[in-house]
Amino acid sequence: MSGARQSLAAPLAITLGDPAGIGPEVILGAWARLRAEGRAPPAFVVGGPQLLRACAERLGIDCPIVPIADPAEAMFASAVGLPVMAGLDGPLTPSRPSPEGASLALASLKWAVRFALSEVAVGLVTAPISKGELAAIGWDYPGQTEFLADACGRPYRDAVMMLAGPSLRTVPLTVHVALAEVPGLLSDELIVHKARIVSAGLTRDFNILKPRLAIASLNPHAGEGGKFGDEETRIIAPAIAALQAEGIDAFGPVPGDALFTPRARQTYDAALCMYHDQALIPLKALEFDDGVNVTLGLPIIRTSPDHGTAFDIAGKGLADPGAMAAAIRMAAEMAMARAAA
Amino acid sequence: MSGARQSLAAPLAITLGDPAGIGPEVILGAWARLRAEGRAPPAFVVGGPQLLRACAERLGIDCPIVPIADPAEAMFASAVGLPVMAGLDGPLTPSRPSPEGASLALASLKWAVRFALSEVAVGLVTAPISKGELAAIGWDYPGQTEFLADACGRPYRDAVMMLAGPSLRTVPLTVHVALAEVPGLLSDELIVHKARIVSAGLTRDFNILKPRLAIASLNPHAGEGGKFGDEETRIIAPAIAALQAEGIDAFGPVPGDALFTPRARQTYDAALCMYHDQALIPLKALEFDDGVNVTLGLPIIRTSPDHGTAFDIAGKGLADPGAMAAAIRMAAEMAMARAAA
Repeated sequence: MSGARQSLAAPLAITLGDPAGIGPEVILGAWARLRAEGRAPPAFVVGGPQLLRACAERLGIDCPIVPIADPAEAMFASAVGLPVMAGLDGPLTPSRPSPEGASLALASLKWAVRFALSEVAVGLVTAPISKGELAAIGWDYPGQTEFLADACGRPYRDAVMMLAGPSLRTVPLTVHVALAEVPGLLSDELIVHKARIVSAGLTRDFNILKPRLAIASLNPHAGEGGKFGDEETRIIAPAIAALQAEGIDAFGPVPGDALFTPRARQTYDAALCMYHDQALIPLKALEFDDGVNVTLGLPIIRTSPDHGTAFDIAGKGLADPGAMAAAIRMAAEMAMARAAA
Repeated sequence: MSGARQSLAAPLAITLGDPAGIGPEVILGAWARLRAEGRAPPAFVVGGPQLLRACAERLGIDCPIVPIADPAEAMFASAVGLPVMAGLDGPLTPSRPSPEGASLALASLKWAVRFALSEVAVGLVTAPISKGELAAIGWDYPGQTEFLADACGRPYRDAVMMLAGPSLRTVPLTVHVALAEVPGLLSDELIVHKARIVSAGLTRDFNILKPRLAIASLNPHAGEGGKFGDEETRIIAPAIAALQAEGIDAFGPVPGDALFTPRARQTYDAALCMYHDQALIPLKALEFDDGVNVTLGLPIIRTSPDHGTAFDIAGKGLADPGAMAAAIRMAAEMAMARAAA
């Protein structure tokens, strides 16, 4: 797939993530793997040439660091090693989060967004940050996704999280809320709004002409005709009818446990789930370490590996770079799909 | 595993299920498969010799029916074909449920329980019945499991449903209730009560000396330190502490989405889940058609295939007998584990 190199109009920007977490090492590991496989797209890390070099040496990762001064250099420099923007750097501090590390992570993210918005970069791959560490230095977003929505001038609700693996894509319609709050947060308007974004995103970024959306039920057995719960008839079925009326290929409500069997997974391009674990349990059970978090609904392309900073194992060479490699590849493929449209 | 034949003290009793559903055909298909593999344990179907013969002919299933007059005959007759108790029978009525069919299914179930309680049978494998059809003839149990608890003189709450596949066992602590009701139904007492039954059942029937029980969280990320939901600290963690104090190897609360990764599945013998779909989604995603529903906590052994009557596809040869075959094998292995103890 070296074709990726020719067909991107600009490189991908990869953020550094918290330097006390596993971000730097999974970037290096992913890049080494993608280069070895001839599948590394043009890309660059936003800051940290010394930090990344120290990390590669410490862990014995064979990944030459190529400092660059301009993102455009990444189009060629990717062939030589891992291009890294110079001018923003800090010490490698595995497992020791600090305000300085959080500031560096935030600066990397802010510059990366600027590059993406100005089309100096065709998309964004974000390494994990620590919300706690960032909150301590005055950053008041629930997460990177909300920050990105804001930076793009969009409301949070337009930024839709999709988890994608090789054989399954799921979208949690509610995310980081207590399970007890989920039923009260669901509405047909919410389902329709997010389903529209998912459908448009799958067409624009995944080249799926008429995406098939399976909509999960909230209750076991889809409520078994109202015997346990009525959200299916009261909220989910009307949302599906509204989506169908505007030409979106949505179906359901499908009982949660029937939605992820091997046969069922052949029937849709994405499963829209009512709560976090309904979307994440099947993905992590089936996709192992390769789950990618994709943000749909924003003008910029954004992917990230579906894991956190993992401060406890940082710097030990234990982190699996598979999800970061998958996130980089997926961002490149999304950029190619957009360019081809 | 022809050893099964020698080591059971009595045969297994298999109920007929609703004759309008897929019960008869999956019994025949499972038996044909187990015999071909040399893995059919001594067993007999409780009623329906003519019905089963008609079904085998209709679908071209190569499975000789051996009518027997006494369950003890099954110890030898299993070598020849599928032993079926004569004296209880009816017409084959695929996809056409009726009060007569429901009555036949109920009679088969009642006799099977009697055989198991009197130790004429070493255990019970139940084919699917229709709660709706049975309710119409005056049967007022929520399902077969509750009927069995009653027949054994035990309260419903002692009958614990466990779903078991080759690589995963899960236990839903709440089952057929609306998701909105789940948080209010959880208590440390409920978790402790069911965990004790699961631990004892895995030792008694699965020969696991010190079962490892993973306890799931209710909220995403186990509530992330109380940020979204407090059931983990208020209910689940105290239950785990109480279980550990009495020597049961329980751990958690484990975030739902972290519980079913390939690595996590190596760390426990059963996962105790807070609600139906948390237990059923990973099982059906991973175990395809071979999920077995095991009832723990009753004096008698009982398994069933993890599917319903499927009236819509009955009589068409479309039903997969894999789960019934797995249910028969699992009941035989449970009976052997008990006998060896």
